[in-house]
Amino acid sequence: MAEFTFQKLVIFGVGLIGGSLALALRRAHPQGLIVGVERTFPSAVRAVDLGVIDQAVALHDDVSLAQALTGADLIVLAAPLSQTYGLLARLAPHLEAHTLVTDTGSAKVSAIAAARAALQGKIGQFVPAHPIAGRALSGVEAALADLYVNHKAVLCALPENTPTAVQRIADMWRAAGAIPYSMEAEQHDAIFASVSHLPHILAFALIEQLLRSGNADLKLAFAGSGFRDFTRIAASNAEMWRDICAANRNALLSELDAYLSVLNNLRAALEIGDGATLESLFARASDKRLQWHMGEPQMSAHLEPI
Amino acid sequence: MAEFTFQKLVIFGVGLIGGSLALALRRAHPQGLIVGVERTFPSAVRAVDLGVIDQAVALHDDVSLAQALTGADLIVLAAPLSQTYGLLARLAPHLEAHTLVTDTGSAKVSAIAAARAALQGKIGQFVPAHPIAGRALSGVEAALADLYVNHKAVLCALPENTPTAVQRIADMWRAAGAIPYSMEAEQHDAIFASVSHLPHILAFALIEQLLRSGNADLKLAFAGSGFRDFTRIAASNAEMWRDICAANRNALLSELDAYLSVLNNLRAALEIGDGATLESLFARASDKRLQWHMGEPQMSAHLEPI
Repeated sequence: MAEFTFQKLVIFGVGLIGGSLALALRRAHPQGLIVGVERTFPSAVRAVDLGVIDQAVALHDDVSLAQALTGADLIVLAAPLSQTYGLLARLAPHLEAHTLVTDTGSAKVSAIAAARAALQGKIGQFVPAHPIAGRALSGVEAALADLYVNHKAVLCALPENTPTAVQRIADMWRAAGAIPYSMEAEQHDAIFASVSHLPHILAFALIEQLLRSGNADLKLAFAGSGFRDFTRIAASNAEMWRDICAANRNALLSELDAYLSVLNNLRAALEIGDGATLESLFARASDKRLQWHMGEPQMSAHLEPI
Repeated sequence: MAEFTFQKLVIFGVGLIGGSLALALRRAHPQGLIVGVERTFPSAVRAVDLGVIDQAVALHDDVSLAQALTGADLIVLAAPLSQTYGLLARLAPHLEAHTLVTDTGSAKVSAIAAARAALQGKIGQFVPAHPIAGRALSGVEAALADLYVNHKAVLCALPENTPTAVQRIADMWRAAGAIPYSMEAEQHDAIFASVSHLPHILAFALIEQLLRSGNADLKLAFAGSGFRDFTRIAASNAEMWRDICAANRNALLSELDAYLSVLNNLRAALEIGDGATLESLFARASDKRLQWHMGEPQMSAHLEPI
């Protein structure tokens, strides 16, 4: 793990993502103070009780929030995407010139627009980021110091960011065990619309279709391991996925339309009994899926490890 | 395991499905003779060498095939679905009055139509069946004596079958460790179109869409465990799935259209930013997926353990 120090880190949203980052950075630099901000005081206190953060602050408590932000050198947003603008607008008046802000959201173009609106002339202090890690469980109880180890973290640096600011956020993720990559926000959103957001929509839709069919329980009784794996992501949190749909609407619509086009091609081949077309498409997909393993990204002009 | 005996069992197609059944029945009744029929003699001999069957026969060898079928009390088809008619037509002239025939295919309406055409007046000797088990691996090398243990096997008995014939095939599956259920062929095909065939089509389509997008490798480099699980079934065998699409075309088209309807509803909500509709659909799907566990089927008028 890389050398990384901080005086005071303030995390907005101490759930799985924020809590895991707190645990990882506490391990990397035990001397640093970590303050957690939650919508309610009891849930922030719970994170203190679990040893994830040092101090608890409720978002609505103006005095405590101002105190928490005083002297903070690092602020991390790890709350649902729909709160990005509100949280940044709330902390903007207290944002000191030396403080860096970053986020963890899985859609970047809209988060950057929200940040520009909220931070205005201070936008250079905001370095957009997205760690690629998660668990089926959520909440601070599910937080793990090792959640990010060997996982990718994508940074979508802004023209206003100094190289020093970008390096510091990259160093923060390295200290948490992650491997930072740099990418344009538009490319990020297209990639994750394709390999994450669209599959979630498709899995939710399959369960919805089963429910509409009227004999879902009978069908589910005969579903096997293929169905189980295919629909695992349909158990994801509805509020979080509503927010992702809103935040990455354009890229997701574009992926969904491309998918519908493939599905309609398949439907046409199925209807006319064109087995050759079906077999060649299945064979191409099967070969690619067998060949794929989760590894190092292929390098491109827009993508490089930092 | 239930008591089950046989004199001579002939299996057409000694791959994962046929080979696993051979291993299971040999364990249940070691005195019985098991003959395997393959498209080529070397692949049948390979199954003998592996200890899966006792005797090897090549399908094109008329004399050996006639000998193999003489005195057989049980014949099992475990070859790709598109061969059902051809294999039954080939064995029909040699089918003795006391012999029962069953199959293992994952689409039943079309298999029954093929059997009626091939067997004509002997159709009562054919008991359609579908064991619900599989592995990512295929071929006789992947065969396991325990493949069917605690898995369901669906029987779609014909009006022409005697109760004794149906019980004997149910007993065969019990002897292999499976739990036999009885169901109408139309209901079987609708259920498996929904929970197996459609998800396979959807997973193949997602990989095809990635390939068409032109930067598949870059996208795949950022794909995580959700994508991995969702697309696992896209690594399935293309020929087998081409056959299933042909054999269960009507039920699959009906499921695909119902799915496209849900997906178009989701697309509309996404386009107009209707977060409430998206969230309630996601929540309904998520609750159902969390609640589901692979267990005993809900009973219905059309479905009962035998």
